[in-house]
Amino acid sequence: MFTIKWNGDSVTILDQRLLPKKEVYNTYRHYRDVADSIRNMETRGAPAIGITAAMGIALAAQNVSFKNVDGFREEMNRVCDAFAATRPTAVNLFAAITRMKNIIAQGNDPAAVRQLLEKEAMAVYNEDIEANKAMGKNGSKYISDGDVVMTHCNAGALATGGYGTALGVIRAAVEQGKKIKVFACETRPYLQGARLTAWELLNDKIPVTLITDSMSGHFMRTGVIKKVIVGADRVAANGDVANKIGTYNHAVLAKENGIPFYVAAPLSTLDPATKSGEDIIIEERGIEEVAFVMDQQIAPEGISIRNPAFDVTPAKYVTAIITEKGVIENPATQGITKFLKS
Amino acid sequence: MFTIKWNGDSVTILDQRLLPKKEVYNTYRHYRDVADSIRNMETRGAPAIGITAAMGIALAAQNVSFKNVDGFREEMNRVCDAFAATRPTAVNLFAAITRMKNIIAQGNDPAAVRQLLEKEAMAVYNEDIEANKAMGKNGSKYISDGDVVMTHCNAGALATGGYGTALGVIRAAVEQGKKIKVFACETRPYLQGARLTAWELLNDKIPVTLITDSMSGHFMRTGVIKKVIVGADRVAANGDVANKIGTYNHAVLAKENGIPFYVAAPLSTLDPATKSGEDIIIEERGIEEVAFVMDQQIAPEGISIRNPAFDVTPAKYVTAIITEKGVIENPATQGITKFLKS
Repeated sequence: MFTIKWNGDSVTILDQRLLPKKEVYNTYRHYRDVADSIRNMETRGAPAIGITAAMGIALAAQNVSFKNVDGFREEMNRVCDAFAATRPTAVNLFAAITRMKNIIAQGNDPAAVRQLLEKEAMAVYNEDIEANKAMGKNGSKYISDGDVVMTHCNAGALATGGYGTALGVIRAAVEQGKKIKVFACETRPYLQGARLTAWELLNDKIPVTLITDSMSGHFMRTGVIKKVIVGADRVAANGDVANKIGTYNHAVLAKENGIPFYVAAPLSTLDPATKSGEDIIIEERGIEEVAFVMDQQIAPEGISIRNPAFDVTPAKYVTAIITEKGVIENPATQGITKFLKS
Repeated sequence: MFTIKWNGDSVTILDQRLLPKKEVYNTYRHYRDVADSIRNMETRGAPAIGITAAMGIALAAQNVSFKNVDGFREEMNRVCDAFAATRPTAVNLFAAITRMKNIIAQGNDPAAVRQLLEKEAMAVYNEDIEANKAMGKNGSKYISDGDVVMTHCNAGALATGGYGTALGVIRAAVEQGKKIKVFACETRPYLQGARLTAWELLNDKIPVTLITDSMSGHFMRTGVIKKVIVGADRVAANGDVANKIGTYNHAVLAKENGIPFYVAAPLSTLDPATKSGEDIIIEERGIEEVAFVMDQQIAPEGISIRNPAFDVTPAKYVTAIITEKGVIENPATQGITKFLKS
């Protein structure tokens, strides 16, 4: 199993929309198809879409037609803009695009730039996996033998180059010999928990129990869940966390029940340029994701629906932000800026 | 549209499992089919299942074979036990059965008892509708013109004889000319919000917006939702409320965001014999309700699943309990016993 793969002249992507029923990989030679795969959630997860965009841009560099180096730059910047327009909330996407844009801006030989873009895309990919393993190591000390750990959405291998952020922390704890049980929230509307986290952990033989999102409080209040760990799509300067819709609910419930709430966030999701959660754009997706589950219509015709894909968890609910560089404990007291400068 | 109807020699029940796509009514002449309709959630909602059980028992009285009055009593008690075994959490079911059992115990002429049981079943039904209207009147003062009111599950006409408990309060406010918008949580796993509340309010032309359960916090924190009102399956002596799974999550989030949280509970759901929420049996239903949405499998084969159908909201999160007799404000300070004796 892999999430994304670079083939030299194409990109292969696991179609996560078909999981857990079918494991289908699609290979794309044109960058537009790669951008579409982000937009339509064939691939998803903040780190994974950063990697996919980088690979898509490297792919485009092989195919764009141009007259001179200025034309090449112009075309490639257009490509970068197309990727930037796919999804607005995760900062990794923009971080990856910026890395590619810097290379485009600096080079004067399209052939050399093309090679550098390919190298950079692979660096984005490899650094992500390394970061996940380091994050796992840094976070695993917070997970004790025998813990039942709840997670929301999929911050696993499927959301990243591999290994995972939140699930990476769990994997690291399991590799240390700790016996861990995971409670996976199904994560409506798109069911990343039921479809992806459950599938991924089942594949890895890590014990996992599926619950609906609305059950989190019940299992916290009755003492079943001991820890919560989630990923992040963007962390603002003050420590506020944008993550999959429902994260805020779990965070408030964890605090109310005295349960630690951890956010596993690679440095690529830390965004000191965004002052607070209020400044983060929350993507609102199509109503069909709520009105239908797969092809089953669950709501009456003509009903009004809201579908924000993310929410903001204020820093005061976060026990610690775990990164590959170290841990920011109690982010409400210090934000992320001091840590990033240290 | 109606939820349940007594036809003299049969009971007609709206098959709520097929909503919102199909409006199908099933007519049953045998009490076992009526009991099954409760167990398999063809009909649901605490008051509605009390009414259905009462009608089912009245129906059984027409058909049981017996040799003498003792044999009749024995048979009818067996019928009552069959209804008591359908679902464990809602107290209305047991309250209705107790009313029917008292009549069975007292009468010496099966033919007369049969008539009294029919009359009692109609009383359970009519009292429920009257109670809902009184509850609506008592609760509507808490709903202001322009409010966006969130509700969970379906505590509407479909959960009762008619009019509804939580939705009855909203209907009463609307009848008073207040402009109200309702946010309906879809209510996984069984989707009573998406399928029933949305359908019922759309039919009544009361503006309704559907959200997933995990979005409640987001719309509270961002100031969209102004009030929360839910029904109840059982209220314990200390004011703790058992209601559809997810209710506790919303209650904690409401308190955290300074939003009033109301419970519309007919007297039949008030259970002073149960000391606190910890003493309420929480029904755990089949895993297929979580693993499938209608006939769509959403989780991998072999996954472990938990499916508690209800949760307990401690009284401290409840702003007021609205009944047909009056309102218990701040139930954490007084419980329900004093109110019931007043």
